Amino acid sequence: MYYIGIDLGGTNISAGLVDENKTIVYKKSCKTPIIGETSDERGNNICDSMCNIVCHILEENNIDYNQIKCVGVGSPGTINHTTGVIEYSNNIALVDFPMKKVMEEKLKEKSIQLSVYIENDANAAALGELKAGGASGAKDAAVITLGTGVGSGVIIDGKIYSGFNEIGVELGHIVIEYNGRQCTCGRKGCWEAYASATGLIESIKQAIKDNPESLMNKLIEQTGEVNAKIAFDARDMGDKVAEQVLNQYFDYLGCGLANVVNAFMPEVICIGGGISAQGEKLLEPLRKIISQEVFSGENTPRTKLTCCTLGNDAGIIGAAMLANQD
Amino acid sequence: MYYIGIDLGGTNISAGLVDENKTIVYKKSCKTPIIGETSDERGNNICDSMCNIVCHILEENNIDYNQIKCVGVGSPGTINHTTGVIEYSNNIALVDFPMKKVMEEKLKEKSIQLSVYIENDANAAALGELKAGGASGAKDAAVITLGTGVGSGVIIDGKIYSGFNEIGVELGHIVIEYNGRQCTCGRKGCWEAYASATGLIESIKQAIKDNPESLMNKLIEQTGEVNAKIAFDARDMGDKVAEQVLNQYFDYLGCGLANVVNAFMPEVICIGGGISAQGEKLLEPLRKIISQEVFSGENTPRTKLTCCTLGNDAGIIGAAMLANQD
Repeated sequence: MYYIGIDLGGTNISAGLVDENKTIVYKKSCKTPIIGETSDERGNNICDSMCNIVCHILEENNIDYNQIKCVGVGSPGTINHTTGVIEYSNNIALVDFPMKKVMEEKLKEKSIQLSVYIENDANAAALGELKAGGASGAKDAAVITLGTGVGSGVIIDGKIYSGFNEIGVELGHIVIEYNGRQCTCGRKGCWEAYASATGLIESIKQAIKDNPESLMNKLIEQTGEVNAKIAFDARDMGDKVAEQVLNQYFDYLGCGLANVVNAFMPEVICIGGGISAQGEKLLEPLRKIISQEVFSGENTPRTKLTCCTLGNDAGIIGAAMLANQD
Repeated sequence: MYYIGIDLGGTNISAGLVDENKTIVYKKSCKTPIIGETSDERGNNICDSMCNIVCHILEENNIDYNQIKCVGVGSPGTINHTTGVIEYSNNIALVDFPMKKVMEEKLKEKSIQLSVYIENDANAAALGELKAGGASGAKDAAVITLGTGVGSGVIIDGKIYSGFNEIGVELGHIVIEYNGRQCTCGRKGCWEAYASATGLIESIKQAIKDNPESLMNKLIEQTGEVNAKIAFDARDMGDKVAEQVLNQYFDYLGCGLANVVNAFMPEVICIGGGISAQGEKLLEPLRKIISQEVFSGENTPRTKLTCCTLGNDAGIIGAAMLANQD
């Protein structure tokens, strides 16, 4: 038996044929056709593309639809996973679009009788990490993605948790500095404003402005851009300014991670996003901060901190597993 | 069919006979006998007292044990509700005490064959509010108690949520002011340090020191103590200092409540503790803050904010309902 998982993004649609071992055995992608005057037109075009990909996957792999258990889609935006309606998605310009229903109908027209499941993309990726990635083997996990923002997905007892209104969870928008940095969500002092890659880059920019002698300036001249890696590289070369920037970053990131532990007490927290490529250079200082800050008895089992392992495949594998939540 | 719920506290043991309508039809209490050299001795003495109360309830109400579905105990401390072991409780001085097992054996010796369930007291009280109090009818709720600290209990899909290590949740120990007020837990800037009754009292004390002309000073002279109510009373009499103190308090409390919404998206948040007696005077300003701060679409169903309604009975009713989690 196989599963098909689709990671529907604002730029690309990436789909994969996933086997019983939760491994992607075949991949196919195309541009996301955000084309049409109305939400319904755009939604129909996107569904057509996704159906074509499903057909292509079946043909190329020479398998029949009844060897597929289901099709799962991870989509940006607010998704009602019970009804399969995309209530609102800025990235793919849809409002109240019944994606599950439309996809199932379009597949049926091609004589493919399959159930379709829709979920928010961050939640689907979190499920992927739980099923086959950094949180494998756990029943409760929080997956935190450090990118433009701080993405988050929480799995409780093997199932995606999204709250009563299905829009959760938004752990990046927990305020950790009352009246602090302006966040894109409208609040001030959100964890995301400090702990995202964007937050770190903002701190780097401020630091090199205040400290023109910092090695980071030279590295930026070489690479032509400011990114998170520069702070790690300069710190490793002995740059004190970079070290300060990183220590401050670890403090804020660790503070928010300890908040997540105190709120959810998950078995595992998985860190994803570009910065997670730093591995133990990131995890080791964070573990120190968390172990000092979490609410816990001496003999209480502690939350394990680790990195995501699936990268962009997490969304495909998680989407494929949507009907397989324990 | 009836249930027996026991609220085991550091000072008193309060028990109730609860009927099918989740109403306490009979109550009985006694002092908590924290007597004995070892944890086992103290645990046995406490269990003896609880068993005597169970016998008393059956006799006084002229009912047989097989008309009782089960006995539930809400206890302070870290409880493993699966094994029924009190892992650590400072208030009743127990360590690794198998309360479920001991209670069931002691009841059996009195020819009473009943299952006993143990849970953390804050979690039991949260379940009580969900079953018969301010969160009635909801499936997901967060119960926040503003007292010496900020107590919290989260119910997900009708069941108490306590994380993989069963010690959650500790929403009072989410940092909302990085490097802020010292908290009793060791962290700095915890929500509890600002939003608890103790936090408000600290702010009142600072304000009257800085503003000797405040009406609050007179009220304190009259009552002989500083409490949260004084700020509300002085504000209602037109005292500007009290108004500032309260507005600041609402801001911090509301900030943390918006954090809880963004983390859990619960259907209902119930506020308990002495300050909740202020009712709409407390809820109305908080609703304003929360509606501006939570992560939500225009048409997304919003978390309802309300007050707890059961007071001290929540712990008894919740304990009685431990075996009745959906």
